[in-house]
Amino acid sequence: MTKAPTAAVLLIGNEVLSGRTKDKNLGFIADYLAALGIDLLEARVVADDEADIIAAVNALRARYTYVFTTGGIGPTHDDITSECIAKAFGVGISHHPEAVEILLAYFKENGREPNEARLRMARVPDGATLIENPVSKAPGFRMENVFVMAGVPKIMQAMMDKIAPQLVRGAIVQSRTIVFQGGEGDVAKPLKDIQDRFGDVTIGSYPFESPQGFATNLVLRSRDAAMLDQAVAEVSAAAALLVQEGKARGWSLA
Amino acid sequence: MTKAPTAAVLLIGNEVLSGRTKDKNLGFIADYLAALGIDLLEARVVADDEADIIAAVNALRARYTYVFTTGGIGPTHDDITSECIAKAFGVGISHHPEAVEILLAYFKENGREPNEARLRMARVPDGATLIENPVSKAPGFRMENVFVMAGVPKIMQAMMDKIAPQLVRGAIVQSRTIVFQGGEGDVAKPLKDIQDRFGDVTIGSYPFESPQGFATNLVLRSRDAAMLDQAVAEVSAAAALLVQEGKARGWSLA
Repeated sequence: MTKAPTAAVLLIGNEVLSGRTKDKNLGFIADYLAALGIDLLEARVVADDEADIIAAVNALRARYTYVFTTGGIGPTHDDITSECIAKAFGVGISHHPEAVEILLAYFKENGREPNEARLRMARVPDGATLIENPVSKAPGFRMENVFVMAGVPKIMQAMMDKIAPQLVRGAIVQSRTIVFQGGEGDVAKPLKDIQDRFGDVTIGSYPFESPQGFATNLVLRSRDAAMLDQAVAEVSAAAALLVQEGKARGWSLA
Repeated sequence: MTKAPTAAVLLIGNEVLSGRTKDKNLGFIADYLAALGIDLLEARVVADDEADIIAAVNALRARYTYVFTTGGIGPTHDDITSECIAKAFGVGISHHPEAVEILLAYFKENGREPNEARLRMARVPDGATLIENPVSKAPGFRMENVFVMAGVPKIMQAMMDKIAPQLVRGAIVQSRTIVFQGGEGDVAKPLKDIQDRFGDVTIGSYPFESPQGFATNLVLRSRDAAMLDQAVAEVSAAAALLVQEGKARGWSLA
């Protein structure tokens, strides 16, 4: 199997770290990339701090196929993402003619003053290409393998739709969940034995409180459907045996 | 003013990156630390991968006063956080006698088999101290400046209450919000001017769609109440001027 593309997410903004904003962008991007078969392997949240943003961008872009950033591309003084990306790549930053055109048309249509602050939103690192913003026009941009998006969820989501066709996709990771009505500690040993034999299947155990008592979701994920089916059959059999032995209340495929 | 303690959060687990689980721990910890006057400056999410966990722990613990991790301390094969913390600190890992005692008593009470997998939850890095778990007993632990907690929100939250008395607190950052009924681009210039003059106040601008049209929350944060009041007064005056000039619909203190 060819290796799947990998990705990291970088959320930029004081508001997530101060607790003021409860982030919803990571979960959205995670789901989105999963549907494209791209493996999201890391996420970071940094404040509106130049050194921190640059360091995170450079660490992540060197390591993963793609980096997706959100936040910090508006018109105010705390929007420093574009400058930081330029510095991270060691290139200049200037007004992108197409971005200026898009913004001027939009400001005219909406009776907004095309002032310096607003036109800052047209500045992108030299060599970057624009990412269309169907919601409020001010574009994001792509710089090599880094995609720079707005922080407002509605705008970020629309930008992801514009980015998607540019991305190399991988085979979709399929996921199956077995709801095990019993203690995680009882299923742990058979689960580990199965995991050891199925290298291409990732098995996770996520306990929760069910109305009947402690239970756990056993989540099996793989790009190999046949292997996945076999592993699911083995975990199901192990769960059934535990029920038979009186060590669990039941199990079911979710 | 003495420097406030700083912190980073490290969320450990495939389930957040695969999109299966929508994280709620970061927002909770962010609010919690803000209330203690501790500055949360970074967060990372990594998969259940030994090298990634160790690298993140070592990067963060060197840089911040405190590191708070969530996830990966259960009984199953994918719970590798404790081993990774031991490796990050270059120490051994062994069954903590007090943790063993707590778990054995709990298992006895609940009719659970005290098997090897379950007793893995009593293993902590050598030198670590336990963090009580009032919900399901299996403890977290503190290793120097790193606090290792469960990933289940209810348990993590209870552990934070046990950790709080051990933390050095800072002065609380006070926050004031001005709801500006107008375009971010119009308030950007006065806002930057005010920010430039108030180094001890952090000003953020967070646009949203109000029923009356585009608007933005201007959030001012500072540990210095007098400075904060003064900055709020200046931003309010700037907003009022924009309304007078017909460039904004209104403004109010939230």
